[in-house]
Amino acid sequence: MRLSRYFLPVLKESPRDAQIVSHRYMLQAGMIKQASAGIYSWLPLGFKVLRRIEDIVHEEQAKAGHIAIQMPTIQSADLWRESGRYDAYGDELLRITDRHDHEMLFTPTAEELVTDIFRSHVSSYKSLPLTLYQIQWKFRDERRPRFGVMRGREFYMKDGYNFDLTKEDALHAYNRHLVSYLRTYERMGLQAIPMRADSGPIGGDDTHEFLVLAETGESEVFYDSAVTDLTFGDRDIDYDNVDQCAAVMEEFTTKYARTDETHDEALFNEVPEERRKVARGIEVGQIFYFGTKYSEAMGATVQGPDGKPVPVHMGSHGIGVSRLLGAIIEASHDDNGIIWPEGVTPYHAGIVNLKQGDAEADAACEALYAQLTNAGLEPLYDDRDERAGGKFATMDMIGLPWRITVGPRGLKNGVVELTSRKTGESEEMAPEAAVARLVEIYKAHDIGHG
Amino acid sequence: MRLSRYFLPVLKESPRDAQIVSHRYMLQAGMIKQASAGIYSWLPLGFKVLRRIEDIVHEEQAKAGHIAIQMPTIQSADLWRESGRYDAYGDELLRITDRHDHEMLFTPTAEELVTDIFRSHVSSYKSLPLTLYQIQWKFRDERRPRFGVMRGREFYMKDGYNFDLTKEDALHAYNRHLVSYLRTYERMGLQAIPMRADSGPIGGDDTHEFLVLAETGESEVFYDSAVTDLTFGDRDIDYDNVDQCAAVMEEFTTKYARTDETHDEALFNEVPEERRKVARGIEVGQIFYFGTKYSEAMGATVQGPDGKPVPVHMGSHGIGVSRLLGAIIEASHDDNGIIWPEGVTPYHAGIVNLKQGDAEADAACEALYAQLTNAGLEPLYDDRDERAGGKFATMDMIGLPWRITVGPRGLKNGVVELTSRKTGESEEMAPEAAVARLVEIYKAHDIGHG
Repeated sequence: MRLSRYFLPVLKESPRDAQIVSHRYMLQAGMIKQASAGIYSWLPLGFKVLRRIEDIVHEEQAKAGHIAIQMPTIQSADLWRESGRYDAYGDELLRITDRHDHEMLFTPTAEELVTDIFRSHVSSYKSLPLTLYQIQWKFRDERRPRFGVMRGREFYMKDGYNFDLTKEDALHAYNRHLVSYLRTYERMGLQAIPMRADSGPIGGDDTHEFLVLAETGESEVFYDSAVTDLTFGDRDIDYDNVDQCAAVMEEFTTKYARTDETHDEALFNEVPEERRKVARGIEVGQIFYFGTKYSEAMGATVQGPDGKPVPVHMGSHGIGVSRLLGAIIEASHDDNGIIWPEGVTPYHAGIVNLKQGDAEADAACEALYAQLTNAGLEPLYDDRDERAGGKFATMDMIGLPWRITVGPRGLKNGVVELTSRKTGESEEMAPEAAVARLVEIYKAHDIGHG
Repeated sequence: MRLSRYFLPVLKESPRDAQIVSHRYMLQAGMIKQASAGIYSWLPLGFKVLRRIEDIVHEEQAKAGHIAIQMPTIQSADLWRESGRYDAYGDELLRITDRHDHEMLFTPTAEELVTDIFRSHVSSYKSLPLTLYQIQWKFRDERRPRFGVMRGREFYMKDGYNFDLTKEDALHAYNRHLVSYLRTYERMGLQAIPMRADSGPIGGDDTHEFLVLAETGESEVFYDSAVTDLTFGDRDIDYDNVDQCAAVMEEFTTKYARTDETHDEALFNEVPEERRKVARGIEVGQIFYFGTKYSEAMGATVQGPDGKPVPVHMGSHGIGVSRLLGAIIEASHDDNGIIWPEGVTPYHAGIVNLKQGDAEADAACEALYAQLTNAGLEPLYDDRDERAGGKFATMDMIGLPWRITVGPRGLKNGVVELTSRKTGESEEMAPEAAVARLVEIYKAHDIGHG
């Protein structure tokens, strides 16, 4: 993409009403624009990151054998009466009346509708296990929306639902989701720690939240510092293997890590003192096993191996897709702007032309643009007639991990400059070498070589 | 994908309440399920086609230089009061009151919001031309929703908006959209004919609808049969070239082609009698130039070259993404089910194992599955323990363009059978030859080799 043809409204001044850095930078980098309280338009740069994150979620869900569907945003209140949630949900549910005076709602979550799909089409245990998921816009009518996309009213979420014959099978689905979530977050450059969460009125202790440590997090978290040493990495996993998935679950959830909702001071004190940490975290996902709560209320039964009907065991599993942009920025930025991890960057590299209009510099930039594009990478070329300082400030703010700087002086020596946004370190090299280096870097991330 | 692990609820009986073939087949093939009147859940097969169509639209919009954004579904009534549409729109607008008693709406179209984005961020003619678009869920509270996704209430639509300094520039944007739409539809295997449409209260004659000829179309259309000979094909186009785009516009819109809304009997009679056709059509898109209607009402001005503020010239351009699934099926099916064009098929080929459990047949199917996958294609393997007749009926209903049939008898002779869904013709060949043939076919369509 050439900046002269793009729509990247970078703000010169820091927006005053944004209280946290991700909100401020998303506005300042021209990623979002508020449409109403807690409701945002996603401008080109923001939408591009949103799509990258969405693609990663889809890819990891597919690997886990989960199947994508799409449910509507507007649903009938009748279904929600079957589960009892229509009256129970409170003011955060956006209630709507259509032209025929039918009571509808903008769905904040879809347990009822997915259970209805299941009961309409599945009647035998032979069709199990089954996990259906979607990535769709949701609405939660927050009383006081704030922090930009972190606590908005209209938000983009992945919500998945497993259907299993037995509690054991459902707990395997639970573990499978935990594994797939660990992989998903790591691909985005995030460490998200599974923490025992509040199970609420359901009972049991089968729910975990995934939290990203960040000063601006809404939750206070208590953990054994040893959990931050755990990474899933690129190990192989067979999602059908019950023991393998259970082992990952155990590895990642045995050490103490809880939010204030479930914090247990006595247990925490058993952790060696030097490893006891108290910090703040941002919730970016949650997994849940809730048994037969919805299947019993809504009659979602299958014929078991013995021919008798049994209600299916279910769970819900969510990833806050739009919220992740905020969480990633909270976890990865500096005073000059965003620092995108390679896995989610909107463009793989920026090209800055120090002297637009100089025939040699223009030609070198065009050649780099073509070579990167042909290698399957997406460059963002700042081809505007602006001063170098302004171009650098824009690139720093929008946070592309790599920048190639091209100027007449370097070209005389046959070199351009490759700069890491994260370390700020620059290295001079031939243009072809810069392209080769970027191809290598992104190959390691398996990006842009689809 | 293996059918044993998929969720493909093919109905045995034809649904009674579906009046047109696309609605019937989408239900029967397990692509959609009605959630409420005119509101559908997209089951795995339907969602996969929806995504393919969405991807094609994105790709063709990017080629035309248009920039993707995402606007929220819920918008404030205040903006719609600025344009005067809040009161004018009538009952099809889904009006919503939030918990703080603010008047909101579920957007059926986004002229107001995109104009607000523009006026907030663009102040100089130097930032023009600019075309922003999105693909997003819309809602139109139809009094009598019908025909499945063809006239639903919640629907998925691409809506684009051009901003230009002059009427001439805006008409180039109009032509550019026409060209990109022709390419978009052709990639989906559709012939969509641009027809002069009703300009309504805007005045002028700068609007065209794109219609797919089909018996079940809602509009009566009148056309010179010579328009059906026109194809855009794989010719090169430079979207910046005003004359090139204008020439395509002229080529595709000079011959008589109108809906009943704009039909002119006298003009029609000038067409040679043997070429005068009356038929029915399905609207799958519309382009519109409306000048300064919104920019004047909402104060979207830029500083012109002479330093004076001028309201920008705008147009809207829409493609009915979810509706296209219905239109494609109406245009491409037979008595046994859907016939997907290669460009939009959910899976590139079906593999039917005639004797599940037979070691040799199973191994041959697995090998085909792996080879097709490695070649970048997505096969759907019917690995269920079912009779051949049932497997064939399912494959015919869901309409994959190609089927590979594998059985012990053929394998004894080293062959499998490759069958075209469209012609019904089968050919025996070695498994490797079948894979090579499919790779070649899809290469011609530039599919699966991203």
